[in-house]
Amino acid sequence: MLRIAVIGAGRIGKIHSGNVARHPRCRLVAVVDPMESAAKALAQEHDAQWASDAADLLAGKDIDAIVVGSPTSTHIDLIDRAAGNGKAVLCEKPIDLDIAKVNRCLEDLRKHPVPLMLGFNRRFDPSADALKQAIAAGTVGRVRQVIISSRDPGPPPLSYLAASGGLFRDMTIHDFDMGRWLLGEEPVEVYATASCLVDPQVAQHNDFDTAMVIMRTASGSQCHINNCRQASYGYDQRLEVFGSAGMLVNDNLRATTLRRFDAETTEAREPLLNFFLERYADSYRRELDAFVAAVLDGKAVPVTGEDGRRALMLADAAIESAREGRAVKI
Amino acid sequence: MLRIAVIGAGRIGKIHSGNVARHPRCRLVAVVDPMESAAKALAQEHDAQWASDAADLLAGKDIDAIVVGSPTSTHIDLIDRAAGNGKAVLCEKPIDLDIAKVNRCLEDLRKHPVPLMLGFNRRFDPSADALKQAIAAGTVGRVRQVIISSRDPGPPPLSYLAASGGLFRDMTIHDFDMGRWLLGEEPVEVYATASCLVDPQVAQHNDFDTAMVIMRTASGSQCHINNCRQASYGYDQRLEVFGSAGMLVNDNLRATTLRRFDAETTEAREPLLNFFLERYADSYRRELDAFVAAVLDGKAVPVTGEDGRRALMLADAAIESAREGRAVKI
Amino acid sequence: MLRIAVIGAGRIGKIHSGNVARHPRCRLVAVVDPMESAAKALAQEHDAQWASDAADLLAGKDIDAIVVGSPTSTHIDLIDRAAGNGKAVLCEKPIDLDIAKVNRCLEDLRKHPVPLMLGFNRRFDPSADALKQAIAAGTVGRVRQVIISSRDPGPPPLSYLAASGGLFRDMTIHDFDMGRWLLGEEPVEVYATASCLVDPQVAQHNDFDTAMVIMRTASGSQCHINNCRQASYGYDQRLEVFGSAGMLVNDNLRATTLRRFDAETTEAREPLLNFFLERYADSYRRELDAFVAAVLDGKAVPVTGEDGRRALMLADAAIESAREGRAVKI
Amino acid sequence: MLRIAVIGAGRIGKIHSGNVARHPRCRLVAVVDPMESAAKALAQEHDAQWASDAADLLAGKDIDAIVVGSPTSTHIDLIDRAAGNGKAVLCEKPIDLDIAKVNRCLEDLRKHPVPLMLGFNRRFDPSADALKQAIAAGTVGRVRQVIISSRDPGPPPLSYLAASGGLFRDMTIHDFDMGRWLLGEEPVEVYATASCLVDPQVAQHNDFDTAMVIMRTASGSQCHINNCRQASYGYDQRLEVFGSAGMLVNDNLRATTLRRFDAETTEAREPLLNFFLERYADSYRRELDAFVAAVLDGKAVPVTGEDGRRALMLADAAIESAREGRAVKI
Repeated sequence: MLRIAVIGAGRIGKIHSGNVARHPRCRLVAVVDPMESAAKALAQEHDAQWASDAADLLAGKDIDAIVVGSPTSTHIDLIDRAAGNGKAVLCEKPIDLDIAKVNRCLEDLRKHPVPLMLGFNRRFDPSADALKQAIAAGTVGRVRQVIISSRDPGPPPLSYLAASGGLFRDMTIHDFDMGRWLLGEEPVEVYATASCLVDPQVAQHNDFDTAMVIMRTASGSQCHINNCRQASYGYDQRLEVFGSAGMLVNDNLRATTLRRFDAETTEAREPLLNFFLERYADSYRRELDAFVAAVLDGKAVPVTGEDGRRALMLADAAIESAREGRAVKI
Repeated sequence: MLRIAVIGAGRIGKIHSGNVARHPRCRLVAVVDPMESAAKALAQEHDAQWASDAADLLAGKDIDAIVVGSPTSTHIDLIDRAAGNGKAVLCEKPIDLDIAKVNRCLEDLRKHPVPLMLGFNRRFDPSADALKQAIAAGTVGRVRQVIISSRDPGPPPLSYLAASGGLFRDMTIHDFDMGRWLLGEEPVEVYATASCLVDPQVAQHNDFDTAMVIMRTASGSQCHINNCRQASYGYDQRLEVFGSAGMLVNDNLRATTLRRFDAETTEAREPLLNFFLERYADSYRRELDAFVAAVLDGKAVPVTGEDGRRALMLADAAIESAREGRAVKI
Repeated sequence: MLRIAVIGAGRIGKIHSGNVARHPRCRLVAVVDPMESAAKALAQEHDAQWASDAADLLAGKDIDAIVVGSPTSTHIDLIDRAAGNGKAVLCEKPIDLDIAKVNRCLEDLRKHPVPLMLGFNRRFDPSADALKQAIAAGTVGRVRQVIISSRDPGPPPLSYLAASGGLFRDMTIHDFDMGRWLLGEEPVEVYATASCLVDPQVAQHNDFDTAMVIMRTASGSQCHINNCRQASYGYDQRLEVFGSAGMLVNDNLRATTLRRFDAETTEAREPLLNFFLERYADSYRRELDAFVAAVLDGKAVPVTGEDGRRALMLADAAIESAREGRAVKI
Repeated sequence: MLRIAVIGAGRIGKIHSGNVARHPRCRLVAVVDPMESAAKALAQEHDAQWASDAADLLAGKDIDAIVVGSPTSTHIDLIDRAAGNGKAVLCEKPIDLDIAKVNRCLEDLRKHPVPLMLGFNRRFDPSADALKQAIAAGTVGRVRQVIISSRDPGPPPLSYLAASGGLFRDMTIHDFDMGRWLLGEEPVEVYATASCLVDPQVAQHNDFDTAMVIMRTASGSQCHINNCRQASYGYDQRLEVFGSAGMLVNDNLRATTLRRFDAETTEAREPLLNFFLERYADSYRRELDAFVAAVLDGKAVPVTGEDGRRALMLADAAIESAREGRAVKI
């Protein structure tokens, strides 16, 4: 039984708390959030304790692990303390927006090795998992091209952008991780171009809302990513892997299989699932399974701090590329 | 080179005339229709002769074959004359609405054997053909169930119904032929139920516009047909063959591959092709290919008079079944 | 909080026990099965009591409701006792294989009215639910034809057949319920034909493994059902509703969205989900939601004893029809 | 009636000759090819003259137009002569591999203006045409991203590469034209990366076989192209246009609608059409229609010499970009 405190009582903290509480091998000990009313409400829903600060829990003996869903700026401190107290960590991406800090954090972790897993939840989507396994089984032969389409249903509030790290570090970072994972080889060069086509005000925040990326590996494999902060038809999440022996494609997931035929259109289906909490509900559950198996059964952590660091490096390179109009070497 | 006269200058005569005129192994010698202006216009379009009556052409030496697209009531006389003069015949279905007359016609034909091919054009649809070949190749194993969905975009005028022979002999007859062909075994029992759901006035013509049929073969294979004279989303033509080793499905054909995604629907495609002249354009061309190959190269006629007779027997059985509420033995 | 005993510790009892145990508004009080080891193991998994007989539990005050997943022959006695003790019942189909006994049971229930819900779980499938709601919203206009394709991945053991009531009462009964529900009108006539195409030994049990059905309502709407006990490609569950304004189609559900393209095939997807426990996992959960809402919130029971009786009448009519080769009036 | 000589009796010349011969408003006067046996055979098939050189035909009065399907190196001379003699030209892409020569050719053409149409046949594909019309109708709102997937079934012989101009000028050039057309705005910046993943020998010819491109317009719209000379599953041709109001997608075209379900896979379809002559058969016919309408009816030429020049500029920019690892401004 893994005794867990969930840090953060926002929408992602709610997802994690529910999954921990329902997991047969976990116990939700506490919910932590400086906004006490939020921590209390979520904790009570699952018969857990609540706290406004994680320090005592991390120093004590009541928990074995933390699941970190608090703001990015708090991650490194939490990882440090957890490591110092021998607690395992499942941490939402990114570790930090500053690659230098991330490097230091991972360096420090070598002195106090505890399991640290990064929350790139999309790897645990059943379809993405089946895709990865099919690649591993040789279904597409040698991977030549990966194409990742990833568009949000609607943009976040402008107030969110300042602390977000920008489009590439906030949104594309999931796709950078997915690209690395599907390519099976590190990208050595990144090119990106980006625009403000959804909302011109985004430009005032020195950010973008619409982007295209190409990455290239040492052996010449290629990966394209396209992003947009707004898609009228819902949360668009597609993958394509093309290789010497064939192609594998993951289409969007739907709530129902219903198709409609009428005088105007045929084969019409409902809009896509609204956003990541619905779309990746299974992924968050399976991510927790993997974390529990890593900590309790000593299995390898499937998404490491190094994976988090690599994705951030790609995001930083994309930002530089978009500004300078040239491919950036990693 | 096969020298052909097309009998009938209506919409089906136009299709056949165009196909004959463009066929590299055919010459369109004449178009025949008692409505002289129609015959003349169609003939001139293809640099052919025209006539209001087929008698002289059939008695002469200018043609080798006729393609019959005139009203059903004229078919048997044309077949008789063609046979008497040694001309081959490609005849639109049905041979006649009266099974006794059909039997006599086919009996007579034995005395003057000429190639007679029935125009069950759907067998020549590339997808139907691929389906039949896959069955023959054993892809589905032993055929257990065939399902035929066949709905028209809109009903014919009420004035058409009187001479049509009714829903089962006019519309379902194509599906009876398709069912026999895909089952690969003769149905021995037919059950049908039918209603007037599109237009209550159809009932006054002692006819139906919406029907379901089940046929059964001696070995226990089953075939379901569903029909309706009106489908808001277009001309619906689907086939399904289920057997011990798997299933094959033919979906509807489309003019384009375009799919649309917006705030209301996703994956939306255009309405289906409007009607048989568009949907089965390829089938009519490939049907003529088969007729030409039968006559010029001595290949087997792929759809025989007996096929026409069998389909009519099933239609007659369906009418009896719908009236009496019991399965009718063939 | 609804306190529930689950009767039956077999595969369906396991599904219900898990769902009850995880339901936020339920408590799993006990698991009952004459096979004590099975009852004990399942009860312990969920921290519940166990018993080899339901009598004491039904007479006592520890439970509010039972979920019945025991053999069909036990259903009526359990319903009777539950009613006598004021306990609500969620009962797997059918109430009984004998329509006379079912009639008596429902008659008796009028004297001791308790909520009785029949386990036609497919109505709670999210796609079926969306389909029904779209019909109710007028999307297809007036319903003309319903087509239900329902094929199992593999046949049950021959030993199962004797107590099953035969194909129509055991398997098609789900489709009879679905047909009634989607038509929105009672069938007044049933025709069925059936064969033994999967296994000739089934005929020795006076049963069938492959069937087609047509039902017809008073207003002339039609419903076709096709069944087979074995489909190589998995558990095939499709629905089609065609009406004056359009068509709605529910395709099969998949575990992943993955499509494969290679030198032999394109667009290839995985085989269908193996069987009902996987395919209808969501349905069982949502069925329990509806039962809880009926009992605790006084909402209408969405699937009644009368629904169970009607489906059985249609199954009995289909058996008679298949034997006699005529449509049977209800 | 447009009197046409087809220049080139290779595979593309055969396509054009057949289409011209069957076109109701054209007459195929002659086929020209220095390989006399090829010219003769193709001409005889269509009852036309043949010649080993086009000079006399262009100087004479027997033809109104030429369709140029001869090697790229001959194009400019043919265009010059045709212009000097007042003949219209439908010319396969590219005008020339050298942009300076293309500029001079188009400059010269201003002195002798004759209709010059470039053979970017894919614009005339019915699905591409429907896509373009839907964009024009506002279906996707403001275009944000275009994605073009274009992979050949197999690579050309190495001997072909030397004269081809390389991957970007030979293969991607179609996609550059398609991108410009769908964006509705000129790209101002091109980035490309390319590899030899199909055949390492291609590198010895200073060429590539696998590439990804991103183009960007002045207003910030983006276009991604992916290419490969070899795809195991056939000739892959897909388009996606994403905008403020929605998305439009063109999938691959198929020869049949057949889908197969068995124990290993479901929904499996046949491999894609083998190559452009099959896949774009309709496009070549509709391209000729547009050329005829431009010349005979004075309609605008839908694909101009300027379109050819622009696509070549993009290809040249892509080559420079792939070599230098930076985006190249147009």
